[in-house]
Amino acid sequence: MALHDRVALIGLGLIASSMAHAMRGAGLCREIVGHARSAETRATALEIGLCDRVCETAAEAVEGADLIVLAVPVGAMGAIAAEIAPHLKPGATVTDVGSVKQAVITAVAPHIPEGVHFIPGHPLAGTEHSGPRSGFATLFRNRWWLLTPPEGADPAAVARLRALCEGMGANVEEMDAAHHDLVLAVTSHTPHLIAYTMVGVADHLRRVTQSEIIRYSAAGFRDFTRIAASDPTMWRDVFLTNKEATLDILGRFTEELFALQRAIRLGDGDHLFEYFTRTRAIRRGIIEAGQDTAAPDFGRAAEATNGTGKG
Amino acid sequence: MALHDRVALIGLGLIASSMAHAMRGAGLCREIVGHARSAETRATALEIGLCDRVCETAAEAVEGADLIVLAVPVGAMGAIAAEIAPHLKPGATVTDVGSVKQAVITAVAPHIPEGVHFIPGHPLAGTEHSGPRSGFATLFRNRWWLLTPPEGADPAAVARLRALCEGMGANVEEMDAAHHDLVLAVTSHTPHLIAYTMVGVADHLRRVTQSEIIRYSAAGFRDFTRIAASDPTMWRDVFLTNKEATLDILGRFTEELFALQRAIRLGDGDHLFEYFTRTRAIRRGIIEAGQDTAAPDFGRAAEATNGTGKG
Repeated sequence: MALHDRVALIGLGLIASSMAHAMRGAGLCREIVGHARSAETRATALEIGLCDRVCETAAEAVEGADLIVLAVPVGAMGAIAAEIAPHLKPGATVTDVGSVKQAVITAVAPHIPEGVHFIPGHPLAGTEHSGPRSGFATLFRNRWWLLTPPEGADPAAVARLRALCEGMGANVEEMDAAHHDLVLAVTSHTPHLIAYTMVGVADHLRRVTQSEIIRYSAAGFRDFTRIAASDPTMWRDVFLTNKEATLDILGRFTEELFALQRAIRLGDGDHLFEYFTRTRAIRRGIIEAGQDTAAPDFGRAAEATNGTGKG
Repeated sequence: MALHDRVALIGLGLIASSMAHAMRGAGLCREIVGHARSAETRATALEIGLCDRVCETAAEAVEGADLIVLAVPVGAMGAIAAEIAPHLKPGATVTDVGSVKQAVITAVAPHIPEGVHFIPGHPLAGTEHSGPRSGFATLFRNRWWLLTPPEGADPAAVARLRALCEGMGANVEEMDAAHHDLVLAVTSHTPHLIAYTMVGVADHLRRVTQSEIIRYSAAGFRDFTRIAASDPTMWRDVFLTNKEATLDILGRFTEELFALQRAIRLGDGDHLFEYFTRTRAIRRGIIEAGQDTAAPDFGRAAEATNGTGKG
């Protein structure tokens, strides 16, 4: 079932290296060509045999490729697209794995030549690790891979990309790019910013020692450090490029937070109780949807293949 | 190694029922007597054989007990203390498992008669479940149990209580009540409030459907629903009674959040990158301290006995 003959991975971090393992494991292509900007990353990729070939330039890597995957930080997509554009094979498909879709489309689409398909994508999968050694074949298994094909996209190219994602174990959903960015602002981008902030607050505190924070982290804080440990470059670009949706959700968040803060200050127990009761229902919905487990201790002992850390 | 002859559990929720299982499993006392305000909870406790005896009143339950554990919401501690005070056996020890310590001491200490020891405590253990059926013997294993004995507390009584906690598998640490409340405001109370808030924001949103939020929750939001699903009564009381420390940390949190929000609005990528890099170090500290695992996917497949949900 070799759906694409040659796949070029531009950027060799967690997502691309996991794709390499997953595509090879499932026999989804004949050849994997890779490129990374850093010589060290290229050397590592060669050393661990991540790709069949590693190229020094992105232009060289995309030559003759049927599928090109842009797996670089969102802020680097435009420059890469400009660089590879003259070297793209007619009929090839370009996709990306960025956590933001509108900004990527704005940056990349103008460079894509006539006759080449551009189908933006976003796998909702990740860990707090990064780099070419962090990838593993099962990263996408049972995770969502969102595609945001533009109007008039070639159905055959979309179907081929969808089959590749499904071949790596993902569940594929198509949606509008603007809606994607809003949904992710709620489910991922704003939660990450908040987690980063809370971890930063703890770091500043003088009266509570760092060792105490670390020691007693399991009381709730640990879940924040978990989602605040992901790749800084990636997250910087997410917030810079999904600015409007993130600021919108952040505004709602601070409004709500101030209302709760006021309830605490005024001792309004009914407000707090009613609020905390309502949030339980969402949790139940997530368990019923099979996105998590109802086992005690949050099922940490039993849970197998879900994670966070990817925008 | 029966350290206490008769233990009275006042309140039969997650913590008390887990204590019953753990004490019985390790043979830490001869008899467990229980009381809960709700007739339904008492009936359940009888039905599942949680205690040797279940009493209709707290006063009755504490008669002749060597150790009395107040395992009710923080806001109910004062009234319970007043009710049981005349029935406490001379030489007995009263402890509690509340998530806030100063407010419990203010509410309970004045009622404790001369000759009875009062040693406040707080096990940092929990799940998002509550009620008499939610308890299990291993809840406290490798978790912290903080004791805040007042100045001049009887060393023998403290040692006996410490041995009981250790017998249930917990690591015991003693600290000042005010410091406890500040540490917990950072590591638990504020993170919980923030998680509740973020889940509440998602609930309000009209343009993103609830099913989308649930479906794509693994991208970060799921960790928030996890910590926002705990017992509403308990959390209401935590915020009402640890008001000052929580508002202090919340103030710092919103300051930091506004600084990050401003950086996003102004497109200040350096600020964001520097901030996100710093928070990674705390995560590493937690892994090195053995409070979590560095395994990919946050070790969800491998991790065994840690959890959150208790203040």
